[in-house]
Amino acid sequence: MNDTTIRPLQFATPAETSGPIETDALIIGAGPIGLFQVFELGLLEIHAHVVDSLPVVGGQCAELYPDKPIYDIPAIQVCTGRELVQALLKQIAPFAPTFHLGEEVQVVERRADKRFYVQTSKGAQFLAKTIFIAAGVGSFQPRTLKVSGIEAYRDKQLFYRVRDPEMFRDKNIVICGGGDSALDWALQLVDVAQSVILLHRRDEFRAAPASVAKMQALCDELRMQSIVGQITGFDDEGGKLARIKVAGSDGVTRSLELDCLLVFYGLSPQLGPIAQWGMEIERRQLPVDTARFETSVPGIFAVGDISTYPGKKKLILSGFHETALAAFGAANYVFPEKKIQLQYTTSSTRLHEVLGVASPVSG
Amino acid sequence: MNDTTIRPLQFATPAETSGPIETDALIIGAGPIGLFQVFELGLLEIHAHVVDSLPVVGGQCAELYPDKPIYDIPAIQVCTGRELVQALLKQIAPFAPTFHLGEEVQVVERRADKRFYVQTSKGAQFLAKTIFIAAGVGSFQPRTLKVSGIEAYRDKQLFYRVRDPEMFRDKNIVICGGGDSALDWALQLVDVAQSVILLHRRDEFRAAPASVAKMQALCDELRMQSIVGQITGFDDEGGKLARIKVAGSDGVTRSLELDCLLVFYGLSPQLGPIAQWGMEIERRQLPVDTARFETSVPGIFAVGDISTYPGKKKLILSGFHETALAAFGAANYVFPEKKIQLQYTTSSTRLHEVLGVASPVSG
Repeated sequence: MNDTTIRPLQFATPAETSGPIETDALIIGAGPIGLFQVFELGLLEIHAHVVDSLPVVGGQCAELYPDKPIYDIPAIQVCTGRELVQALLKQIAPFAPTFHLGEEVQVVERRADKRFYVQTSKGAQFLAKTIFIAAGVGSFQPRTLKVSGIEAYRDKQLFYRVRDPEMFRDKNIVICGGGDSALDWALQLVDVAQSVILLHRRDEFRAAPASVAKMQALCDELRMQSIVGQITGFDDEGGKLARIKVAGSDGVTRSLELDCLLVFYGLSPQLGPIAQWGMEIERRQLPVDTARFETSVPGIFAVGDISTYPGKKKLILSGFHETALAAFGAANYVFPEKKIQLQYTTSSTRLHEVLGVASPVSG
Repeated sequence: MNDTTIRPLQFATPAETSGPIETDALIIGAGPIGLFQVFELGLLEIHAHVVDSLPVVGGQCAELYPDKPIYDIPAIQVCTGRELVQALLKQIAPFAPTFHLGEEVQVVERRADKRFYVQTSKGAQFLAKTIFIAAGVGSFQPRTLKVSGIEAYRDKQLFYRVRDPEMFRDKNIVICGGGDSALDWALQLVDVAQSVILLHRRDEFRAAPASVAKMQALCDELRMQSIVGQITGFDDEGGKLARIKVAGSDGVTRSLELDCLLVFYGLSPQLGPIAQWGMEIERRQLPVDTARFETSVPGIFAVGDISTYPGKKKLILSGFHETALAAFGAANYVFPEKKIQLQYTTSSTRLHEVLGVASPVSG
């Protein structure tokens, strides 16, 4: 996946995340709508921080269809998800948003001064005047193993992500899955672990053919093992996961000894902690008004696929419109004393200044 | 202006306009929003005819700022009005809309079969199931001379547009204005008319410097005359405009004999006949709901700058969103029996067919 990641412009540095960051706007979600929210806020001279649970910007465009052509972005005949994200990053560059990637917003609390206290899974803290939820279908969480009781070993012997390959040095590991992540980690950990077994429910793999070929060559050399089957249960010994039971394609269930189980079943979107922030929720979406795209909590706006209102269509172009009106809605909180007027990028010298472009000499 | 016009793809031919054209959708306005309405209707397999009072597509983008940079079209860092229109024409090409340019919709009447009978200033007639008003700030009409009573000579001796230069052969003409149109016609008609006087309220011209220089050279050769002043009145002789009275910058009013008066004071938008079609109007705009962008007349939708609703901002990106929801609203009239589902251009093989693009082999 590393070759396909899209790099944002400015990351939060540790110094910046050491105390609560005071900000006018916090955007949750760095998909195309979250990115364009930066732009619309920027035109109103509101700086934004952006948090996303994925380690890269782009949201669904990066995660679900980086290479698929999109035909319905206005005035762009065709572009891929990745190209769309790259174009948006370029467009928002003048507003220098700060990105906090690979972390999930977990806590949102209203403070006495009406600002929101926000905390992420990595411990970053914010005091934000306004929040924009551009979280699409929710945050992408790993699909879990559907084996009753096995979640008890999570982050001890059961892992859905690899943070440090060294954790698996000299361990007997079983890797589940047939996609790129499963194959990539199998190929990488074969040199680190004591033994690697790749477990997949069928003998066809979604992973890149080159990775599959490499894996098969390693199996032929007896340096790793590939098994077709599904986990049906496990044995505990002294509070530790000792063995998993695997039903093979031949109908026979076998036991596999292991130290660690790594599961790569892909990512699936979850509403997650958003459900705890006190907003009205309707079928996993946030109802908003169509004048400001504000949720039932004043100061929290929802734009893009996560928002809902009569007539709502989950279209990227609708999300763009929503960000513009939400930005004006937020301006009332950020600049309560200021009368905000719509200015045009074709003619406003002030907008030319904030965009960092030269104004034409005459109109 | 001819070098800057933007050519659409398909014009109505005389054969097509000889009787009422039956159509599912008629779009009034060929600006960026009218053009994108073609696209959103096209995705739902609804073909559209497009009428515009200007002789070119592009609306305000073509008329007011063809060369000015626009910075707030999502995912397009910068483009001119002309480039935006060209990109939209390219994008809508698969849907082959038919354009009827240089004609204004004058009559809209509901028929017993619920369709709308529509007639334009050039006599084109339509029977349309749905109408989309994407008329921006209205149709562009020439700014008229503010001299009481002089409109009586309109299209006889007073002209705001030149349809046929030969009309002015061997005539004594006065051309009013200081912009490109005034100068261009002065330079062209000097070889046709008996005499040409260019009348402008000040001695600076907005027209291209090269045209101004040419005009001044012709004045030096006594082939034409340039006067600074303003028309304050006129003399009628036997029902004909005989003389205009011109107050000069020296405070003296002089009489100028003439056969024809050509006025080029620019174009200004007018709501025009739209006000007569029975729709609710609010401050020269059409109130719509935000689920379907339908006016108070069922089956007539309003999108772009001419529409209004709580929170409305006159932004091109908002118009794009409005066209998408209006298209779904219209689908209920065009296909009353069909359940319309949102499909994505990234994944729908049916949309790939209507767009004329190849579907990827696998998802």
